[in-house]
Amino acid sequence: MDNTEEQLINAHKAIGVIDSGVGGLTVVKEISKRLPHESIIYFGDTARMPYGPRSYAEVRGFVLEMIDFLQLQEIKILVVACNSATAAGLSYYQQACELPVLGVIEPGVRAALVQSNSGRIGVIGTVGTINSSEYVKALRSNNGSLHIVTQACPLFVLLVENNLIATPEAKKVAHEYLDPLVSENIDSLILGCTHYPLMTDLIQEVVGPSIKLINSAEEIAAEVESILNNSGMANPFEYGEPRHRFFVSGSPEPFEEVGSKLLQREIKAYQVHLRNFTLPAND
Amino acid sequence: MDNTEEQLINAHKAIGVIDSGVGGLTVVKEISKRLPHESIIYFGDTARMPYGPRSYAEVRGFVLEMIDFLQLQEIKILVVACNSATAAGLSYYQQACELPVLGVIEPGVRAALVQSNSGRIGVIGTVGTINSSEYVKALRSNNGSLHIVTQACPLFVLLVENNLIATPEAKKVAHEYLDPLVSENIDSLILGCTHYPLMTDLIQEVVGPSIKLINSAEEIAAEVESILNNSGMANPFEYGEPRHRFFVSGSPEPFEEVGSKLLQREIKAYQVHLRNFTLPAND
Repeated sequence: MDNTEEQLINAHKAIGVIDSGVGGLTVVKEISKRLPHESIIYFGDTARMPYGPRSYAEVRGFVLEMIDFLQLQEIKILVVACNSATAAGLSYYQQACELPVLGVIEPGVRAALVQSNSGRIGVIGTVGTINSSEYVKALRSNNGSLHIVTQACPLFVLLVENNLIATPEAKKVAHEYLDPLVSENIDSLILGCTHYPLMTDLIQEVVGPSIKLINSAEEIAAEVESILNNSGMANPFEYGEPRHRFFVSGSPEPFEEVGSKLLQREIKAYQVHLRNFTLPAND
Repeated sequence: MDNTEEQLINAHKAIGVIDSGVGGLTVVKEISKRLPHESIIYFGDTARMPYGPRSYAEVRGFVLEMIDFLQLQEIKILVVACNSATAAGLSYYQQACELPVLGVIEPGVRAALVQSNSGRIGVIGTVGTINSSEYVKALRSNNGSLHIVTQACPLFVLLVENNLIATPEAKKVAHEYLDPLVSENIDSLILGCTHYPLMTDLIQEVVGPSIKLINSAEEIAAEVESILNNSGMANPFEYGEPRHRFFVSGSPEPFEEVGSKLLQREIKAYQVHLRNFTLPAND
């Protein structure tokens, strides 16, 4: 096929988005707002979430399984919409995969640097993300004089995945995690986990209105758009309906419930058993 | 998008093939021999096979679930590579689905009419296929004076799916089913189940060399080619490797073992949980 045809076929392929569960749907939401004509194929590894407490080696193995599946589905770019997975080995995935692969840490850091006036920045995330210090390293490499305070919030993902955000115990847990950050006089707080935008209201209520919450999803969507445009991979076709496919490794119903609320339209997902699956060369 | 672009995108889509198990791979084999540049997406409902003893209503429901999944995968034509499923409601699937939908009965009938000299034709299939009399009706509507003998062979699918063809009991079973057909002096035998080409050697040995075995898979592949060419949907692009995706509803390993032998290359399959899944409009 000639170059134009190949480019057209490639442009018609989907944006792949992976996460440990429903959290990455906050990224899907921003991507579909900004790029409504792009197909999106999502994989949520709900059977094995949360990733936060797992070893990097284990998380990398899980991520590669999702990448294998999405490559078979023909995608043109991959977003690792999970901070724990990004922290566990973004450059590792980039090497394993010939597609452009984006993580969620750099975009969040860029947004925080723009938003913070005082240079006092809080970062919350899973145990894996916080222990990796990837946010601190990325922030410091941009500005060595920042005051950075971090806090692992291991229960937050479970509150979101189990639809328990609006409970009194969730509020107690949020105070327990967030009060120490507030007392450090931060002016912005990086939501270092794609699940956290699903509990923005609770977090904002607990930290108070003066602290800006940094959701990296918008920044990621902007970066995806820019890569697609610069590489000629943006889909030039318009469709009446969003062309999204959702897959999960666990039970689809809870995913559909949270996801339909978040995306404000009914979504359906298929359960797929992930496995180690090395593909034959494609093309 | 303009017409040329739309046609190009459509031509790049895959041929969907569904079956109750591994049997439809005999159709995949013939399609990929004849159309090596076409993508094929296969679904084998191995968790619920065999279809032969099930009610038509139940089989139709299962088939619609596979169709939903394959439509999400973006296919351009659908082959119902299962005689029981074809007998249960080919026109029903054609109405449920905007794509061209091909069954396996008509092609087998056409091939038998060409091959038979004496007009004495045997038909073997599952209980569902034989009880439906679809082969007999289709043969008679072409030629009212044929001598047709049918025989349900319920154990054959299980012998194939469980890799038991090369056993002494398989030979006994084959004699039990086929000897009455031989004594009717048929000159050709329609393999009215896509599993049966996987046990051609045994069947030919039992019926003897003078009876022609009719495998509809080649005829189906020819029909797929003709539809794609006539509708401008043939994929004009060449790829080094076949671009095939295999999905099953049951355990992938036995499917991979039989399938890799049949297709003479290592294949891998993902297990997907089928469900009732009505899609939003696509495009």
